[in-house]
Amino acid sequence: MASNSFGLIYRFTSFGESHGDCLGVILDGVPSNFPLDLTKIQADLDRRKPGQNKLMSQRKEDDDFELVSGYFEGKTTGTPLTFLVRNKDQKSRSYTDIVNLYRPGHADYTYHKKYKNYNPYGGGRSSARETLARVIAGSVAKQFLETFNISIEAQLTQVGDIKGSVDLMHEEILRVKKLGNSIGGKIEVRAKNIPVGVGEPIYEKLDARLAYAFMSINAVKAVEIGDGVEVVTKMGSENNDVIRKDGRFESNHSGGILGGISTGQDLLASVSIKPTPSIFVTQDTINKNNEEVQFDLKGRHDPCVALRAPVIIEAMMAQVVFDLMLLDGSFFS
Amino acid sequence: MASNSFGLIYRFTSFGESHGDCLGVILDGVPSNFPLDLTKIQADLDRRKPGQNKLMSQRKEDDDFELVSGYFEGKTTGTPLTFLVRNKDQKSRSYTDIVNLYRPGHADYTYHKKYKNYNPYGGGRSSARETLARVIAGSVAKQFLETFNISIEAQLTQVGDIKGSVDLMHEEILRVKKLGNSIGGKIEVRAKNIPVGVGEPIYEKLDARLAYAFMSINAVKAVEIGDGVEVVTKMGSENNDVIRKDGRFESNHSGGILGGISTGQDLLASVSIKPTPSIFVTQDTINKNNEEVQFDLKGRHDPCVALRAPVIIEAMMAQVVFDLMLLDGSFFS
Amino acid sequence: MASNSFGLIYRFTSFGESHGDCLGVILDGVPSNFPLDLTKIQADLDRRKPGQNKLMSQRKEDDDFELVSGYFEGKTTGTPLTFLVRNKDQKSRSYTDIVNLYRPGHADYTYHKKYKNYNPYGGGRSSARETLARVIAGSVAKQFLETFNISIEAQLTQVGDIKGSVDLMHEEILRVKKLGNSIGGKIEVRAKNIPVGVGEPIYEKLDARLAYAFMSINAVKAVEIGDGVEVVTKMGSENNDVIRKDGRFESNHSGGILGGISTGQDLLASVSIKPTPSIFVTQDTINKNNEEVQFDLKGRHDPCVALRAPVIIEAMMAQVVFDLMLLDGSFFS
Amino acid sequence: MASNSFGLIYRFTSFGESHGDCLGVILDGVPSNFPLDLTKIQADLDRRKPGQNKLMSQRKEDDDFELVSGYFEGKTTGTPLTFLVRNKDQKSRSYTDIVNLYRPGHADYTYHKKYKNYNPYGGGRSSARETLARVIAGSVAKQFLETFNISIEAQLTQVGDIKGSVDLMHEEILRVKKLGNSIGGKIEVRAKNIPVGVGEPIYEKLDARLAYAFMSINAVKAVEIGDGVEVVTKMGSENNDVIRKDGRFESNHSGGILGGISTGQDLLASVSIKPTPSIFVTQDTINKNNEEVQFDLKGRHDPCVALRAPVIIEAMMAQVVFDLMLLDGSFFS
Repeated sequence: MASNSFGLIYRFTSFGESHGDCLGVILDGVPSNFPLDLTKIQADLDRRKPGQNKLMSQRKEDDDFELVSGYFEGKTTGTPLTFLVRNKDQKSRSYTDIVNLYRPGHADYTYHKKYKNYNPYGGGRSSARETLARVIAGSVAKQFLETFNISIEAQLTQVGDIKGSVDLMHEEILRVKKLGNSIGGKIEVRAKNIPVGVGEPIYEKLDARLAYAFMSINAVKAVEIGDGVEVVTKMGSENNDVIRKDGRFESNHSGGILGGISTGQDLLASVSIKPTPSIFVTQDTINKNNEEVQFDLKGRHDPCVALRAPVIIEAMMAQVVFDLMLLDGSFFS
Repeated sequence: MASNSFGLIYRFTSFGESHGDCLGVILDGVPSNFPLDLTKIQADLDRRKPGQNKLMSQRKEDDDFELVSGYFEGKTTGTPLTFLVRNKDQKSRSYTDIVNLYRPGHADYTYHKKYKNYNPYGGGRSSARETLARVIAGSVAKQFLETFNISIEAQLTQVGDIKGSVDLMHEEILRVKKLGNSIGGKIEVRAKNIPVGVGEPIYEKLDARLAYAFMSINAVKAVEIGDGVEVVTKMGSENNDVIRKDGRFESNHSGGILGGISTGQDLLASVSIKPTPSIFVTQDTINKNNEEVQFDLKGRHDPCVALRAPVIIEAMMAQVVFDLMLLDGSFFS
Repeated sequence: MASNSFGLIYRFTSFGESHGDCLGVILDGVPSNFPLDLTKIQADLDRRKPGQNKLMSQRKEDDDFELVSGYFEGKTTGTPLTFLVRNKDQKSRSYTDIVNLYRPGHADYTYHKKYKNYNPYGGGRSSARETLARVIAGSVAKQFLETFNISIEAQLTQVGDIKGSVDLMHEEILRVKKLGNSIGGKIEVRAKNIPVGVGEPIYEKLDARLAYAFMSINAVKAVEIGDGVEVVTKMGSENNDVIRKDGRFESNHSGGILGGISTGQDLLASVSIKPTPSIFVTQDTINKNNEEVQFDLKGRHDPCVALRAPVIIEAMMAQVVFDLMLLDGSFFS
Repeated sequence: MASNSFGLIYRFTSFGESHGDCLGVILDGVPSNFPLDLTKIQADLDRRKPGQNKLMSQRKEDDDFELVSGYFEGKTTGTPLTFLVRNKDQKSRSYTDIVNLYRPGHADYTYHKKYKNYNPYGGGRSSARETLARVIAGSVAKQFLETFNISIEAQLTQVGDIKGSVDLMHEEILRVKKLGNSIGGKIEVRAKNIPVGVGEPIYEKLDARLAYAFMSINAVKAVEIGDGVEVVTKMGSENNDVIRKDGRFESNHSGGILGGISTGQDLLASVSIKPTPSIFVTQDTINKNNEEVQFDLKGRHDPCVALRAPVIIEAMMAQVVFDLMLLDGSFFS
């Protein structure tokens, strides 16, 4: 089964390895004659790229894209939009010394066992660089959603035990970085002005597809909708959102979804992202000959991958909402 | 888009309303000549049904199934298996007085706004009775997985603030029931003897499909894989699972999945289930004429829907694992 | 891969064997609140059933359906429509003596080699009785298309070498029947009032999906669009359809499709249906022990299966047109 | 719905316009570690390109491809293979004078009505240049099929009324070319050494998917399997293929398919291709202002597009057979 595609109507297919010639994405199911602003796509890509500040890996990736199909004189044509991002940095191969061992917490072990081959440089297809494709797909979706006045914004709200204060979270990241270690993070996302009725009732529920989309992102280990794990401790009388005239709700414990369908309230979700397994601490593992070894990682790695993830979370939410709106058929008409 | 189907190769389609003639499910993609034990399916259905004890709704649902296709002389034929479950109880219509109002926390509001119609009795298609279909699909999947020695077991591990002790959790449910209220619950699920290599690397990741499957179940508000939301507070050195000779791991923070692919460790996940919105406390809401009203619910409702959910969670995990094993092609050969 | 479903948005799944308890079909993706006339569905089923006259097999099949979900007070609810047709006649088992041999021209050989099992009575899933599901799906689609004033009509236009005259074609069928033999037939189908723009440009072309749908029907060996095989002998100047003001075309060699998209002219197609392989002439074949044997067929078989096929062809065309209109999104809004 | 992809397991997605920067194709679902010979792909592309001799359009298209992902040290990695073909010739714009009118027999009219835009140069996405993607996808499939000793060969067998003799067919093409006209053609394709059991019984039948695949190719108006349209005139006793010991058949009227599943005989099919609508004869049509006009075409066009189609027909058959073999799961193991 082809498994490099995501989406039902607005469906994208990503391709390319982190250290091959290029990565890219095809966006299929795009309505025609839409005035697409390419600078917004570049702006979203810039939010994802490493090296933005001292909290991030200092790899340089320009991530300039080429748009090679589906676009003419500033508008979509209705044919597939294809974006290419060349890998300019792929010659610097500080990874080669680890090619024979399975880095703990990475996909090295499972990929090798499954595919019986091994990407010689970095994570190959499992690299987080694949999220470039998602950011592009989501950025295009956002522009369509803007015509409905829908906006989506994600932010980092927790790093380790530090919640809420950006300054303190950044301090925590620097502290962990100095230890040669890494730290997890939580991202919350909110979509405003979602119309009532987005999502299908049984298996293509809005929350189900959000969970699917978010959990497919590297390093995500939990997805919560609305009050999420907190609902376990709540009574029905506390958790129910009272409906008032004209569909105003008194609270939003549900995160804007009932029965898999949007209520018209803000859409609220969060994801928990694990600390990157790439740390500068001597680690035990085994190599491809099944020998137990120790190793020290080199290269440039983010101490908190959650820091660059909000734009990816936004992208996947935008894809899901746009896709389900197209699926319903009654929104775009 | 047809949205009443789930799965890629082992794909099931559910149909029927809670208060129509019958519910049913078609299982497509089933290998032929498999000796299917129907008593195990009935046993799983019995674990789901209401009225098992005083902690549950006292609705009587026999949930006996008819298997009307795909089965001959004790074996699957390779053609679709079709199960029907008649709704014997659908004449008792204590629901009719609430037909004109939107019950808070239920799908009434979103369904009505989306479909412009209204199921007159109970939740219609949004009723948790649809999970019958999932239990059947999962029960069949489990039997195939048993041939790999794979077992899946889910259990309720938290109710409100009470964790772990079954007796104390049951006490809490009774306490809440006496209040005419309801309470949330957490379910943990574990699959043993999963082979390495289940799951596809980018969008059909094992964890992504589990999240998709679990979040599509009524009342689920959070899905966690492995350490789940706890990863936010962890450093990489704490979260990485050290790999030892022959693929033994020293810990299982990952929940048995790296890069979307099973590691061969136990598969670990949990879901958080909200308190049922059906409570016996006077509530505010609006009716279909957009008038604010108060109402009192009648009927028979579970004070803790999580109590009956483990078999549903097992079913969806079994479906996902079996489906991804078929998708890979190298497991069944 | 589940392969018992057809369609993209309006997607149906059929199930059941010809000699099991029942056949059935689930129609998913049906718009809600549509006033569905069940008598029209029965009328279409009656056009398909055997025993209508002396030209047909004298098997008695009542083909009364139960509609068990998705329908309330005369209207669709938007949830899946499920139809069951009980097999009342399945006890009469004149087939059992042929269970050990491969009937030439039937699917016995390929099914047995593929599935390693063998349906003991008649064709099992390969029986033309499965087309009941298609007729129901198509009959529902037709009712939706009627709201666009679209009508679809298929007719038998050739039997053996006899073209056009119904009386002469019927004579030919009787002549062949007396020989204990069978004869092929051609069916032409025309859809009127198709709007411009139905079909997608590359792989989900209107003509491609029609060919897919028609060729999936038992016994169909050729599908032609517009002038079909005749285009081989034509020059461009003869084959081009001149476009006049307001989209009136001077001819319709194209069959109403250009570039995979409807032109607004009548949609024209034809299918060629082979003579049924069930004939009352002694035949050579092999049995399951790979021994060469002779056999004589018993039972009741149509001398010209094409005679009952027009309603099936109409059904598949209706499904394809309705499905592609839903896919486009701009027609139903 | 995304409609630029084809296939179930071995699924390809094409992108790009004939006069944009590049065309390309992503092949998903490709098994890993397969030694792919790129020179064979180029050889197939060379069979498709124009300008091979005086019977063809003299456009120069080099059609050199870049393979930018999924391939490492001569082998597939299991990740998507992405091929790009740059459009070197796109600057020569002899098409611009026809941008305002609908060429008869082309997709101009239907595309414009459907998408409300208009590709300024040539056919855009509807151009036969899209078949590059199919040839690449099919060429890769052929290499996998070769490991089963399966070979696929298509040839032109009729041009106008001339059948069989290559020299006479070429003479006929030159004759028509001198008239400034074009001519139709028939292509027959044969696959050898197909194992028994390829194809699914109901909707993903081998013949149904071949019809779908072939009819999606530009200019194809008929698809025949085995004896095709001839079955109409046959009696069952003439059309049945007698089965002998060890699965040897005495004839192959069925084209190697019974009940949608391969019999192990050669797979036989044919397609009828219309004369290209691009002719050098003054034609009537309308322009975008709905005015009736006359026009004379310029540019370089093939007098018989069927001449370059065999490699495309082979490609689509290879894709279908390979895809259904992967779908079954029992062939590759």
